[in-house]
Amino acid sequence: MNLRLTLDEIFKLVPEAETEGATPLEEIAGIASLESAKTGDLSFLGNSKYKSFVASTEASVVLLPQDYSGQPNPNQLYLRMKEPSRGLATLCRFLEDRVFPPSPPTVHETAFVDPSAEIGRGGSVGPFCYVGSDVKVGVNSTIGSHCHLGDHVEIGESCKLHPGVKILSRCNIHDRVILNAGVVIGSEGYGFDQVGEVHEKVPHLGKVVIEEDVEIGANTCIDRARFDETRIGTGTKIDNLVQIGHNVKIGKGCLIVAQVGISGSVEFDDYVVVGGQAGFAGHLKVGKGAKIAGQAGITKDVEAGAFLKGNPALPFQLAQRISVLQRKLPELFNRFAENPSTK
Amino acid sequence: MNLRLTLDEIFKLVPEAETEGATPLEEIAGIASLESAKTGDLSFLGNSKYKSFVASTEASVVLLPQDYSGQPNPNQLYLRMKEPSRGLATLCRFLEDRVFPPSPPTVHETAFVDPSAEIGRGGSVGPFCYVGSDVKVGVNSTIGSHCHLGDHVEIGESCKLHPGVKILSRCNIHDRVILNAGVVIGSEGYGFDQVGEVHEKVPHLGKVVIEEDVEIGANTCIDRARFDETRIGTGTKIDNLVQIGHNVKIGKGCLIVAQVGISGSVEFDDYVVVGGQAGFAGHLKVGKGAKIAGQAGITKDVEAGAFLKGNPALPFQLAQRISVLQRKLPELFNRFAENPSTK
Amino acid sequence: MNLRLTLDEIFKLVPEAETEGATPLEEIAGIASLESAKTGDLSFLGNSKYKSFVASTEASVVLLPQDYSGQPNPNQLYLRMKEPSRGLATLCRFLEDRVFPPSPPTVHETAFVDPSAEIGRGGSVGPFCYVGSDVKVGVNSTIGSHCHLGDHVEIGESCKLHPGVKILSRCNIHDRVILNAGVVIGSEGYGFDQVGEVHEKVPHLGKVVIEEDVEIGANTCIDRARFDETRIGTGTKIDNLVQIGHNVKIGKGCLIVAQVGISGSVEFDDYVVVGGQAGFAGHLKVGKGAKIAGQAGITKDVEAGAFLKGNPALPFQLAQRISVLQRKLPELFNRFAENPSTK
Repeated sequence: MNLRLTLDEIFKLVPEAETEGATPLEEIAGIASLESAKTGDLSFLGNSKYKSFVASTEASVVLLPQDYSGQPNPNQLYLRMKEPSRGLATLCRFLEDRVFPPSPPTVHETAFVDPSAEIGRGGSVGPFCYVGSDVKVGVNSTIGSHCHLGDHVEIGESCKLHPGVKILSRCNIHDRVILNAGVVIGSEGYGFDQVGEVHEKVPHLGKVVIEEDVEIGANTCIDRARFDETRIGTGTKIDNLVQIGHNVKIGKGCLIVAQVGISGSVEFDDYVVVGGQAGFAGHLKVGKGAKIAGQAGITKDVEAGAFLKGNPALPFQLAQRISVLQRKLPELFNRFAENPSTK
Repeated sequence: MNLRLTLDEIFKLVPEAETEGATPLEEIAGIASLESAKTGDLSFLGNSKYKSFVASTEASVVLLPQDYSGQPNPNQLYLRMKEPSRGLATLCRFLEDRVFPPSPPTVHETAFVDPSAEIGRGGSVGPFCYVGSDVKVGVNSTIGSHCHLGDHVEIGESCKLHPGVKILSRCNIHDRVILNAGVVIGSEGYGFDQVGEVHEKVPHLGKVVIEEDVEIGANTCIDRARFDETRIGTGTKIDNLVQIGHNVKIGKGCLIVAQVGISGSVEFDDYVVVGGQAGFAGHLKVGKGAKIAGQAGITKDVEAGAFLKGNPALPFQLAQRISVLQRKLPELFNRFAENPSTK
Repeated sequence: MNLRLTLDEIFKLVPEAETEGATPLEEIAGIASLESAKTGDLSFLGNSKYKSFVASTEASVVLLPQDYSGQPNPNQLYLRMKEPSRGLATLCRFLEDRVFPPSPPTVHETAFVDPSAEIGRGGSVGPFCYVGSDVKVGVNSTIGSHCHLGDHVEIGESCKLHPGVKILSRCNIHDRVILNAGVVIGSEGYGFDQVGEVHEKVPHLGKVVIEEDVEIGANTCIDRARFDETRIGTGTKIDNLVQIGHNVKIGKGCLIVAQVGISGSVEFDDYVVVGGQAGFAGHLKVGKGAKIAGQAGITKDVEAGAFLKGNPALPFQLAQRISVLQRKLPELFNRFAENPSTK
């Protein structure tokens, strides 16, 4: 990918940088990790565990913490700063607008917007979007192609909906939310009354509320509530292909990795972290800051701060110890069989 | 969510109700569970295990079974009836049409319908839908926005397709089927011939048949058969993000929870229940009424009525017992190590 | 499914066939396995393990290897050839164009194609497609309905995009790639910097590259790289609902079954085979030809040629042996408890 930046642009974006060494280049050709960077690239030491790679990196420009003790190679420029990760983020956000220019603040000629809908100033509605009756879209929000905003949907300010997002009637999206392609918000909940041998549909009259600064990955699905609302808390980040059932409440700042499944009426407190492909049975409560390993199967309430693994889920250390012992089972059975006193 | 109903409407919808107590309200403001209901809400005792919550509920109107022995609080109205769950369902279905008004029985101005397609009386085709050649849609069926109905697709009566459903050529959907947003019906099966080091595509010429009263969750995928058909039986309910491979046959009245994966050529008898994220290897037969716990991995045929858990899957009670014993492995290894006679 | 072929067509398509016996039919009505074929159908012996079904098949025409020793029933035609599977594939590819006729080589009247985009000769752009600026589509490629091709996307020759595929800006698709309905290519990677209690977005400036002859299943998601590219190697076949994270590199000729999850920066060498619902933690390397069983959880690098199962993953044979011993745990604990010398 062409990620060019002139040195002048870099100096303007991170004016706090202290320079050491010099590069004959006037612009960088790309950004790369210390190991994979080539001459012409910019690299960075974001995590001190990669410190040993700095001396040998071929990068022409390297962002470093102020206390890094080494010196640049010939034709290499060091830029020291308090937080190289923040410096890198500043450069990347500048590049992002260049690589993916924002959509023009217009309604695309192929979109259909109901006359009763309100699109905020600076907002953009993409090709083949359907915007239903009484929809409200806040200022500076971007709606990608092929999106569906059902009747009475409300979308906050500075949101970004990628192509093919479906937000069904009456759901609410707060400010600065990012929804990746193919996300479904407000699908019918999975609930049935057994009447004889027939599963009779339970209507789902509620909605979904997505709070500020939430990001949701591609093709993830969030079901509407039976009566009130399914709710995702401020700043929670959800990966691709996640399933979130009806009436679920997710707290603030949670991280939910790809392909996790959360059954109906589960409640997460804040800052819960869930590894990929883990699953939660219905109606559980998960305490603040709990961590759940990938592929774990959770069938009971989880205490705040717990770290669980496996199915059935156990405290992480115990699960690790049992895994080690399971590998010794063949030996144990052999010794047991050979021992005359235990026969 | 605003779920208003006047008391007059309630009395008309559940005329069998026997009243006890009284509320000064003329309409209810919402519906909620006994625990979460506030003054102004209607609540219900659908499952006797929640009986203890009735006395303390703040709900203004409560649906109760005839034999419930308690008495209403001041300003509280009890409505006793044979089956409060059915009464609630009646109220909810009435509200559903108010909260989510049915689409008008027209083809949206932005839709494309091939001249050879037939749309039944009362049917509706949503914005940006593509309806291919020789498609037939039955009476009173609703096709949401951005749906694709490929050539020769047939859809029965009173179906509901949510936005973004893709039904590929020649697949059949019977009456009263509900397909949630992003469902894919008729994707190519995953089958290849190994020719040297190359995986050569096996064409999939068959179709998918979805029988009456099936519901399918958001972003679920069902592959077409190699020659004949993949088939989902009457009244089966499938949750979100489920994968169903080529040639699979699912019986009647099955329940398949979110993120389950069913490999090619598996056959389910009727009334099979599968918990979330369970997986099935190819070509298996699963007997009538079998129950499979969430995250189970099924690699052998399953007998009718079996209840399995784990990977490899074991009878539920045995799996539970082994889970308990695994937690005791550290103790067992310690005792074994300490016992001189077993060294 | 009507899969009619006249005997004349069959003889022309597989001229190498040696005939034995005869059928009074002039055309076959369908294709089916040996067991399920009825009079009028064509069947085949593709795998010698089904040899015993040949004698009793009701099929009117049977493709067989040259060395098959039996003889046809009355009114049954045997067609012997070197490789009946290849013969069958030839017939099926002929039928495929009849059952699913290719789209006409035009841009559909409802599509939107940016004036700067180039659509190759023989290419087709389906209804309600959005084709962005500077997009290039190679000759004879077919874009289904409701697809999104973001700015600067490049698509090779003879590709097939089924309906609702979303390819986000700057991603590259090489020749003869098949993308099933709802595939998302180039979603934002899941990466955040923790700043206090806030998860700050890490911009993803890279792209996705899909090499020649790759096939990708319905609703599968592949995230773009942080700086450079996520890459899927030539001839790799990916099933439905698979998650592939940012910066992942997949080698040539890999098979990745449904609902597998591959975390960021994982690298697969060539010919890796992964069973359904398996998961990979981030930054792992998986060696050439490794096989991973369904639902396995991989948290460490995998050696070339390894065959792993379970979570934590173990060599297949060891995992099988431990599974057997786990079933004996109740017996072991009982014997241990009963043995006075071990108390």
